[in-house]
Amino acid sequence: MSREIEVCLSPTLIPNYIIEGRIVVVIDIFRATSSICYGIENGAESIIPVATVEECLSYNGKGYLLAAERNGEVVEGFDFGNSPFSYTKEKVEGKTVVLTTTNGTHAINQSLKAKQIVIGSFLNLNALCTWLDAQSDDVLLLCSGWKNKFNLEDTLFAGAVVHTLKNKFSHHCDAAIASEDMYLLAKDNLRAYLHKSSHSQRLKELNIEDDIQFCLKQNICSVIPVLKDGKIVSIC
Amino acid sequence: MSREIEVCLSPTLIPNYIIEGRIVVVIDIFRATSSICYGIENGAESIIPVATVEECLSYNGKGYLLAAERNGEVVEGFDFGNSPFSYTKEKVEGKTVVLTTTNGTHAINQSLKAKQIVIGSFLNLNALCTWLDAQSDDVLLLCSGWKNKFNLEDTLFAGAVVHTLKNKFSHHCDAAIASEDMYLLAKDNLRAYLHKSSHSQRLKELNIEDDIQFCLKQNICSVIPVLKDGKIVSIC
Repeated sequence: MSREIEVCLSPTLIPNYIIEGRIVVVIDIFRATSSICYGIENGAESIIPVATVEECLSYNGKGYLLAAERNGEVVEGFDFGNSPFSYTKEKVEGKTVVLTTTNGTHAINQSLKAKQIVIGSFLNLNALCTWLDAQSDDVLLLCSGWKNKFNLEDTLFAGAVVHTLKNKFSHHCDAAIASEDMYLLAKDNLRAYLHKSSHSQRLKELNIEDDIQFCLKQNICSVIPVLKDGKIVSIC
Repeated sequence: MSREIEVCLSPTLIPNYIIEGRIVVVIDIFRATSSICYGIENGAESIIPVATVEECLSYNGKGYLLAAERNGEVVEGFDFGNSPFSYTKEKVEGKTVVLTTTNGTHAINQSLKAKQIVIGSFLNLNALCTWLDAQSDDVLLLCSGWKNKFNLEDTLFAGAVVHTLKNKFSHHCDAAIASEDMYLLAKDNLRAYLHKSSHSQRLKELNIEDDIQFCLKQNICSVIPVLKDGKIVSIC
């Protein structure tokens, strides 16, 4: 087991890790990377992650679907928001979506020196693990967090990946050990566990419980979304 | 409960937190903050934390005790290393010790804007919690980590403090929730839990198992070490 798997608990911590030559898995469970997986699964040609509504707006009138939310509401003039339910086959097949996501975009931008940047969520957990196992590279699981702080939901997903792959990769990193233990604590009822998280509370106030439930579903997608020339596309 | 307690899992994450007006508890369980608590408890007049052996050496010949290790060995010409067993009454009473500690010094330097910087370890856990509860300020528990990465032992201690104070402070921060859950997982046998940590493995290679056992003892110290004019002294 010469391959290593590590967990980085916030994009702010990235300078402490080796990125070059590694596969970085970007994780932003509520809701960016879940929506990306679902959109690519449903035939979106590509998804372009941007940090701000203004940047998203600069793609207006050029044939893209624009997705932006502020305070849980679709921004006026945009096609839809960040809910995974906006990324159905009917809406996204054959289209390119420009998605506003502060935390996820920041995490991707911090990882640009990686050999490959792929997108992880509970929706594609098993497909992702199978794919990672088939590569020969070291893996860094990068939690996007909330405004650069540690968050529970991204850490639980990192823990699920560590748990699945731990017999295939070496994992000496304390963050990997902690993530796995937290996942094992929470796995029988992720939603119940997350009720105590701060971010879950914030999301509840936005009235998107259905989104949260959906983002915690496991293995309904088989795609591996990958960053290619600034766009996220299916790896296949 | 208008007071808040937060946990910062690495000094690198400090820019994401409010420091001003808060009490920061610096945590570096293996072994800097444990040795500091024990030394102050045993009557050291003050302890000056420095980052490098070279900086420590600059205090040579000025009446200080110099403590520095490289690779687990006392550096030639220094009085002792970083083992808490060097901080006995016989050795440190009435003296000022200059202590080399990379992670701990870095954490302190990142917190200089705090209202007050105090030192925490399992050795003074209850005394610290009682003192924190008697103040009216928000608290940030700062894990020094290992080379700026998350580590288990500092997180477990943060979790112990959160667990003790959670009915006295609000704690919305996901890192506080995670730390407490990890502490609850590990508390019945901290040493056994830490056997799987990377840092514990490194320390084992340094042959300092006695130090580790000692740093996990709870409540053998009643002091609150506090930073004052660059020196750590007893708060009383």
